[in-house]
Amino acid sequence: MGRVRLIVIGGDAAGMSAASQARRRLGSGDLKITAFERGEYTSYSACGIPYWVGGLVDGPGDLIARDPATFRESGIEVHTGHEVTGIDLAARTVTVNGRTESFDHLVYAAGATPIRPPWAGTPAGGVFGVQTLGDGAALQQWLDGGRDSAVVIGAGYIGVEMAEALQRRGLRVTLVERSGQPMSTIDPDMGALVADSVRKLGIELRTGVTVQGLETSGGRVSAVVTDDGVLPADVVVLGLGVRPNTALADAAGLPLGVTGALATDLGQRVTGPDGIVEGVWAAGDCTQVTHLVSGRPAHVPLGTHANKQGRVAGINIGGGYATFPGVIGTAITKICDLEVARTGLSSKEAEAAGFRFVTATVESTNRAGYFPGAVPMTVKLIAEKDTGLLLGAQIVGRTEAAKRIDAFAVAVWNRMTVTEMTALDLGYAPPYAPVWDPVLIAARKAGDAL
Amino acid sequence: MGRVRLIVIGGDAAGMSAASQARRRLGSGDLKITAFERGEYTSYSACGIPYWVGGLVDGPGDLIARDPATFRESGIEVHTGHEVTGIDLAARTVTVNGRTESFDHLVYAAGATPIRPPWAGTPAGGVFGVQTLGDGAALQQWLDGGRDSAVVIGAGYIGVEMAEALQRRGLRVTLVERSGQPMSTIDPDMGALVADSVRKLGIELRTGVTVQGLETSGGRVSAVVTDDGVLPADVVVLGLGVRPNTALADAAGLPLGVTGALATDLGQRVTGPDGIVEGVWAAGDCTQVTHLVSGRPAHVPLGTHANKQGRVAGINIGGGYATFPGVIGTAITKICDLEVARTGLSSKEAEAAGFRFVTATVESTNRAGYFPGAVPMTVKLIAEKDTGLLLGAQIVGRTEAAKRIDAFAVAVWNRMTVTEMTALDLGYAPPYAPVWDPVLIAARKAGDAL
Repeated sequence: MGRVRLIVIGGDAAGMSAASQARRRLGSGDLKITAFERGEYTSYSACGIPYWVGGLVDGPGDLIARDPATFRESGIEVHTGHEVTGIDLAARTVTVNGRTESFDHLVYAAGATPIRPPWAGTPAGGVFGVQTLGDGAALQQWLDGGRDSAVVIGAGYIGVEMAEALQRRGLRVTLVERSGQPMSTIDPDMGALVADSVRKLGIELRTGVTVQGLETSGGRVSAVVTDDGVLPADVVVLGLGVRPNTALADAAGLPLGVTGALATDLGQRVTGPDGIVEGVWAAGDCTQVTHLVSGRPAHVPLGTHANKQGRVAGINIGGGYATFPGVIGTAITKICDLEVARTGLSSKEAEAAGFRFVTATVESTNRAGYFPGAVPMTVKLIAEKDTGLLLGAQIVGRTEAAKRIDAFAVAVWNRMTVTEMTALDLGYAPPYAPVWDPVLIAARKAGDAL
Repeated sequence: MGRVRLIVIGGDAAGMSAASQARRRLGSGDLKITAFERGEYTSYSACGIPYWVGGLVDGPGDLIARDPATFRESGIEVHTGHEVTGIDLAARTVTVNGRTESFDHLVYAAGATPIRPPWAGTPAGGVFGVQTLGDGAALQQWLDGGRDSAVVIGAGYIGVEMAEALQRRGLRVTLVERSGQPMSTIDPDMGALVADSVRKLGIELRTGVTVQGLETSGGRVSAVVTDDGVLPADVVVLGLGVRPNTALADAAGLPLGVTGALATDLGQRVTGPDGIVEGVWAAGDCTQVTHLVSGRPAHVPLGTHANKQGRVAGINIGGGYATFPGVIGTAITKICDLEVARTGLSSKEAEAAGFRFVTATVESTNRAGYFPGAVPMTVKLIAEKDTGLLLGAQIVGRTEAAKRIDAFAVAVWNRMTVTEMTALDLGYAPPYAPVWDPVLIAARKAGDAL
């Protein structure tokens, strides 16, 4: 038996984690690994782009975890600027830059592509997504040309982060959001706290506003047309979310899940109505995951999941055993001095999933009230009626707030009730928490609400 | 039926939490509550004393959560300067300041007393425990007299915190510890990181040194005599730990647990070989708890437990239902810019409990490596051989480190394996964590070690 050939489509976190883990288990004599990346960079932190644009970190080099040369040293061939344009499952080949390459195992890790509404369809200078390091580099170059006003469309995590980054760069920034609040993944009352903070930064936040089109002049964007007026802009950032980049997989006849992303088994093997597609794996933003609280399939494109899924695929390809059971919807972000976090289900999501629930919101502090640096923190919990199961948690605070979501995340993961949570032995010392940590106070209040 | 009479012995966290919770459920017409506190203050944060001494917080007022007047307003009578000197279980009375008071329910919350070795037996000016707010006030007054050199005996949490506080006040500080490391509740390799940091602060740390006595001059301490020389000192702080203050309970015939503290059921009812002692409750530093990982009885005097136990007792006295299942040994502290945390069992404790285990130590960072403010963090895990159950975790870092222990604490509480932990959906964003949070990296490494 000759060497097994592994081809990886997509050279970012998911694909390269898979490659690295497979390589850790199988030497070059047993496994040949080739990764194709259509862009210029490998294994980078797209999550770092807002901080690069905002001037807090240097880029793109600092955002790259490992470059092709480093992968090559560990026996992983990476070809950037190589776009896979076809997959022949019967022949076990892919077409890339016009030639054909055969595989025994295929890891599909093509990521996601920014949602570009029809009105953004005509390419115009000055309009950017924030999905790849290439997007970031292009935006940086555009900004270096000297710009005055920016419109960010979509006030989700990336939109808010980009609005702050552009404001930090000295631009006048308008943040436009169709729904009634920024960060629609948290409840409206918590979103209102974020809205206040964004406005205090000097960003013009316009909620309930629908974008209708772009105005251009000489091939460059000049304004954003909305149902609430025309907003002049010499740079437009699209923060409208992403969709799984599965066109190639679909064309090859790979089955897609209900979310339009690739469904996999626990080991990241692509699965469809007819079971596992032998030797084909998927990981990262192009895949569908199970939301462990709602029990539903979901598309949650986040670097942290991509890394885990890639690792799991690679371990299994290498003959080991690992699983990725799913997600619980944890997410955190920083907006200037505001920290925002969530896990589990929001009220809207809990309702959509069919839960009946109570909510409890508490105001507390990050440290003992008397300790220097103590600042307020708001925590909201969602607990199932009758059972008291913790369904979700949201935090908005100023410092040492967001990562408290992890305690809730582990509690949600383990299906704890809020009543049991009141007994949790969490870390207490005045510089870190009041004697009743906000996590515990929230659990108490939720218990009372039941 | 007349009013039920509740007497509380001890006016700090445990006792007053019990009183408050009972009062929330039963009005003054149904329940009369009287609390006796032998000291001057009620419901205070003894944990805040080092920061008061160090000048970071104002005291004693800032450290008092609720004073007697506030309690009185909510229908709870509190008498400070009242020491209960006898309990007659048959007559259902206590003796306090020479008079007799009868009760239907008794909450014993007398706390703990600092361990004073025989050589510290003769009272001398300048020798202080750090257990009550009164201790703190006395120490402050002594320091205001102008002191140059301090010796802190015992390098546990309170000892290290006090050493830093005194150093901050401008004293020359020597910290003496009998064992080979400061913070013997963490493993020696982690303790070495603390030792380095304490020394860098300019504190003279002497480990492996046994104190033999005190030298006095004119009724004041002048030096500490050790097996490694005589250390001049015009203030001595005892950080040798505490023992449960159960002499009064013992004299009354209340059964004590194997740790010398009062054993209770899950609802904080005092229990002995003959079962529950009807109408007698205990909470706080005078009680014994179950360590949920070792399964053993333990004495873990911490404000966070005292508050929870008091609340549980009060809810049950008031006719509600609540339980305190036990502790898992979580503790955190701050030493200047160093953060130290632990949960579960240390290697020594795991061994003593009969576990076979592996350990894994990882170096990571608090934030994405490229993000401003990223600093190193060391995480050590202890996992049971074969099963992979997380038995304990320890963290030493510089910032945003210690409270990560909570994720481990919730995992230990829920009996997670380190392998399952690698899949946890924890918060990720570059300002808060690398894409693999240190918690997850440690879990991976522990999984590999199995």
